[in-house]
Amino acid sequence: MEISEIRRTVYVGTFIYSTSLTKLEVLENAAVIVGVDKGTILAIEKTVTEETVGLWEGEVGTKIVRAGEGQFFFPGFIDTHIHAPQYPNSGIFGSSTLLDWLDRYTFPLEASLSNPSKAHRVYARCVSRTLSHGTTTAAYYATRDVTSTNILASVCFAAGQRAFVGRCCMDCLSPDYYRDESPAQAIADTKACANYIDKLDPTHALVTPIITPRFAPSCSRELLAGLGAYMAESGLPCQTHISENKAEVAFVAELFPEYDSYASVYDAYGLLQPKTVLAHAIYLSDAEIALVKRRGAKVSHCPVSNTALTSGAAKVRRLLDEGIVVGLGTDVSGGYSPSILEAARQATMTSRFVALTDGEAAKLGVEEALYLATRGGAEVLGLEKKVGAFELGMEWDAILVGLTDVPEELGEVVGGGMGPVDVFGWESWLEKVAKWVYCGDDRNVLKVWVSGKIVHNKPEQ
Amino acid sequence: MEISEIRRTVYVGTFIYSTSLTKLEVLENAAVIVGVDKGTILAIEKTVTEETVGLWEGEVGTKIVRAGEGQFFFPGFIDTHIHAPQYPNSGIFGSSTLLDWLDRYTFPLEASLSNPSKAHRVYARCVSRTLSHGTTTAAYYATRDVTSTNILASVCFAAGQRAFVGRCCMDCLSPDYYRDESPAQAIADTKACANYIDKLDPTHALVTPIITPRFAPSCSRELLAGLGAYMAESGLPCQTHISENKAEVAFVAELFPEYDSYASVYDAYGLLQPKTVLAHAIYLSDAEIALVKRRGAKVSHCPVSNTALTSGAAKVRRLLDEGIVVGLGTDVSGGYSPSILEAARQATMTSRFVALTDGEAAKLGVEEALYLATRGGAEVLGLEKKVGAFELGMEWDAILVGLTDVPEELGEVVGGGMGPVDVFGWESWLEKVAKWVYCGDDRNVLKVWVSGKIVHNKPEQ
Repeated sequence: MEISEIRRTVYVGTFIYSTSLTKLEVLENAAVIVGVDKGTILAIEKTVTEETVGLWEGEVGTKIVRAGEGQFFFPGFIDTHIHAPQYPNSGIFGSSTLLDWLDRYTFPLEASLSNPSKAHRVYARCVSRTLSHGTTTAAYYATRDVTSTNILASVCFAAGQRAFVGRCCMDCLSPDYYRDESPAQAIADTKACANYIDKLDPTHALVTPIITPRFAPSCSRELLAGLGAYMAESGLPCQTHISENKAEVAFVAELFPEYDSYASVYDAYGLLQPKTVLAHAIYLSDAEIALVKRRGAKVSHCPVSNTALTSGAAKVRRLLDEGIVVGLGTDVSGGYSPSILEAARQATMTSRFVALTDGEAAKLGVEEALYLATRGGAEVLGLEKKVGAFELGMEWDAILVGLTDVPEELGEVVGGGMGPVDVFGWESWLEKVAKWVYCGDDRNVLKVWVSGKIVHNKPEQ
Repeated sequence: MEISEIRRTVYVGTFIYSTSLTKLEVLENAAVIVGVDKGTILAIEKTVTEETVGLWEGEVGTKIVRAGEGQFFFPGFIDTHIHAPQYPNSGIFGSSTLLDWLDRYTFPLEASLSNPSKAHRVYARCVSRTLSHGTTTAAYYATRDVTSTNILASVCFAAGQRAFVGRCCMDCLSPDYYRDESPAQAIADTKACANYIDKLDPTHALVTPIITPRFAPSCSRELLAGLGAYMAESGLPCQTHISENKAEVAFVAELFPEYDSYASVYDAYGLLQPKTVLAHAIYLSDAEIALVKRRGAKVSHCPVSNTALTSGAAKVRRLLDEGIVVGLGTDVSGGYSPSILEAARQATMTSRFVALTDGEAAKLGVEEALYLATRGGAEVLGLEKKVGAFELGMEWDAILVGLTDVPEELGEVVGGGMGPVDVFGWESWLEKVAKWVYCGDDRNVLKVWVSGKIVHNKPEQ
């Protein structure tokens, strides 16, 4: 049978996904039927017999993909905040905090990516790595360079990763060697990148431009106003940073004395919208939380970065209780890991520090962290009807997860080459999921699909 | 040439190790000569030429082991606190804190290891995993079962891992199904395990018994007194827990009203000694810190566990400033990872939460975390003359670390199978080490030696 004749793929085995913030659904011996042309879920059979699978196998145009014993399908991860050009600095941040970290580590590396061949090398590696960790959708910051930003869009498109790609706008307070020359130029360059993506992927099925003022301190009022106007006119989403670090919050108050808060600055320029992704949101005041909620803006929680840069711990439970939509971000390279599984793990860990002062209810559990990593992230990026779970009509953005069975019989003492999650055989599915969240890594991500197409296939070991 | 004729091994390449808390020494193009019979370092050549290596290669009885380009030798990791029987629960702790975690997750699993075949399966896997992560020395808690404790000692000995193995003493406040029947029996069983190890490894070259009162709440006064007397009489080391959790501290105050602190309880029974390893030490009062220092007892810092169980963050900088010796522990399965590299990473992370309240000086950097993981741990276990660095007369307990070079030319987008640390080529050695600490895992540990013998050899990928 020719590949081109395949009309639908039937995924068979165990499926796990969030049905709410606190509930993971486990479907064993189930099947999900995906149409090949649009990559959407056509049917979900909660229980199937081998006889049924046998009938499907006999059908012309149907391909069967099975999760092996102990393996499970899970929705692809959604990274709502990642700086692709900073990827080579992962792990290199010393004892810095936000503002000195930007000057010392970040701006020099980002500026150097105006070299297209360097940009291509870095972006290809970054996208390859995020895919191998199971990130099916990512909201990327690029650099302020147009060509290099377009290279990132092309790399995502070619690799088949669902992506938002934003040229980084910054016409103030950045070093001479790395600053937009004027608000007008910054806006023109932003539009140039959007136009490039419009040609690359006219329907934005995979890659979407995203308006990206770096953060308030690096943007003039004129630039913020221009980007707000462009957002209104284009309908494009927007991403920026907010309230990551106490010194930054004080700096914004000094730079924008006419506004009563950091959130008010973005709001004044029309940038606080339902399609706005705000990274960090650690020190929002009650009034800012109310404003963010009123505007329907979303939050990207980046726990690894927040701890690494001594920024603090976002009060995620509070934001969720207020009804604000929250997803997870790796924030590479403020965060050292390109893995959303690691972000989920550290979201539970940083929440425990919040719990030490705010009480046990502040803790996030495994279920909640995985919700943020999938459905939460999807809603942050306006994709909640499309990805983040296994539901009728959603696209098949998924990963196949495999764990390691510890042999019953004592064999030789072996080490490398095997995945990091040991299953002894007595664990429930939810315990296996907990082991995966705390002990797992990219070795457990065996296959990755976006919109029904395979985009990562781990070599057999 | 027969293997038996090899009299010395010459390790050639880059060597990195701590020379102080804040300094990592990097020796490039160096050689370390190790005698095969005792596994000790006979000579260190800080600079060698290819000619010299060529001469060595020609010598009868000399074997050359090279670190490849970009690889380096590093001292083996020392885990000063790990519960081997809890290994299968790694990642399974829900939202529990110490006291309910013990009842719900820990005691049932530990009790079940009175089944020798289950114990063997779990211990073999645990030791295999710690070796694959580069742990050359570990201080293990076993269970209260004598046979099962002896199995752990045998597994360590057979695998060639340097280990302290302690039968867990607990005659109070534990469930009926998992409690020593009397203080006398607990002490007799402890001695039985020590006698077993004396026969297994008469000089304790590799495996040493360690007296292990679980923690004050699970020990009667009579048991503590008996163990204190046994410690004095045998000269053996001791390990226990202290001040991990606020509820535990309050519980100890209630159980032992005649003593003015948790540390005083151990001190009163002769258990606070230079050979005592105290795990956690999060909430020690000033008076307790002074007492611990006066007695010369050591501290095992377990950051992953402390965060996971919402215990809090130990003030490691304070302890170090007071002159208390500190090492790192994984505390599996309070900690979810068997890796001391992960413990080092999280030691820097939890220190950032301490810094948020106590100031920037509280932060631990990469150099300091690696010192704690090697020399600090060695001193905690009384092995500071023997392991933890590359110095004349020390034993060759070492790992070979390899990172991944990102190709210059864009190739296919590849994922699994490669190690997690990407090197682009412009990083300094110390930046490579930082990348390893933050992004590395067992895939980067290519080979592991204890006392000059290879104990783990990662299969080629």
